[in-house]
Amino acid sequence: MPINYPNGRPSSHFHSNKPKKKKEIRYGKRGMTLESDLSHSNEYYRANNIAIIHKKPTPVQIVKVNYPKRSAARITEAYYQKASTTDYNGIYKGFYIDFEAKETQNKTSFPLKNFHDHQIEHLKNCRKQGGICFAILCFSSLKRIFVLDIKQLCYYWNSQFDEKGAKSIPLAEIEKKSLEIHYGFAPRIPYLDAVDQMIDRRV
Amino acid sequence: MPINYPNGRPSSHFHSNKPKKKKEIRYGKRGMTLESDLSHSNEYYRANNIAIIHKKPTPVQIVKVNYPKRSAARITEAYYQKASTTDYNGIYKGFYIDFEAKETQNKTSFPLKNFHDHQIEHLKNCRKQGGICFAILCFSSLKRIFVLDIKQLCYYWNSQFDEKGAKSIPLAEIEKKSLEIHYGFAPRIPYLDAVDQMIDRRV
Repeated sequence: MPINYPNGRPSSHFHSNKPKKKKEIRYGKRGMTLESDLSHSNEYYRANNIAIIHKKPTPVQIVKVNYPKRSAARITEAYYQKASTTDYNGIYKGFYIDFEAKETQNKTSFPLKNFHDHQIEHLKNCRKQGGICFAILCFSSLKRIFVLDIKQLCYYWNSQFDEKGAKSIPLAEIEKKSLEIHYGFAPRIPYLDAVDQMIDRRV
Repeated sequence: MPINYPNGRPSSHFHSNKPKKKKEIRYGKRGMTLESDLSHSNEYYRANNIAIIHKKPTPVQIVKVNYPKRSAARITEAYYQKASTTDYNGIYKGFYIDFEAKETQNKTSFPLKNFHDHQIEHLKNCRKQGGICFAILCFSSLKRIFVLDIKQLCYYWNSQFDEKGAKSIPLAEIEKKSLEIHYGFAPRIPYLDAVDQMIDRRV
């Protein structure tokens, strides 16, 4: 079976005998490591009855579905929809947990354009209801991960709209204002350690 | 633009000058009223800063996507995936809320086959973490809606596997063990009234 590119074109279309010089940028794979590390961490937390946290499915508007006999329903036309919430939520020690996970290749600052207005709004609203709400910021080239409370994130988010407001959060600021998580074996990203500290501060 | 049936066949395929005698069963529409009533109720609760509760998107495995120039990415091959959680979750008064909503045309009992094992497991696990977990049971022909705590639901769920265990919950039992909700204008299904009672019992 030929494997096609995500745009449906056969891969042979791009074949050539000359070695390619230009490095192929695979946007579809951006964030996959962070996502799969978080997925494994959540599985670990669930399997050990520590927390029940899931990633929400990508919202898709389904337009056409074929129901072939003796096989699974096949969706033949659908479109991505804008999410109205964040990617992750669940429960831990009785607390409602809600977060968004983002990564950057930057080494000195985290661009705020990684976030969308509705994600910030959703985190703020859940915080008002008493939830533990934050962002996981991953500097993938540095292999460093931070947990930033929504209150801090909001401060930087709002500042960007000020005159001469910064469009990104400097790493030095993130080091001061957030909790760093260190990669582990199981869970790979022990972000609930940071959540424990956020709970301790609140109680 | 012709409007096609969900299976992709043009609607004209079904047109005829004779009046149809056989009533068409539209499985795709089952549960739509309950779903849209809950969607409106959740919007009302969010807009009034009462609770942040969302329906999760249907999980879909995306296989092929076309990226036409100057228009939205079009998914051309995808399949429904099995959900691992329930349909609804969120936060209310600091409590994690998780529930599944189901309806039946039956008038005397609620068939347990409406639920899946993973939904019951998920609700049980979230309850253990301190969440408020329940099922919304809608008798659509009777226009009656009930909120049944996961502990009660578990009792009936487990009993069905006993010898001569009932495969459904009699309405008379539901009337005794659950909290009835009465349709309103805004929100249409004021299910948080029942949640308030569940919180009161717990505090």
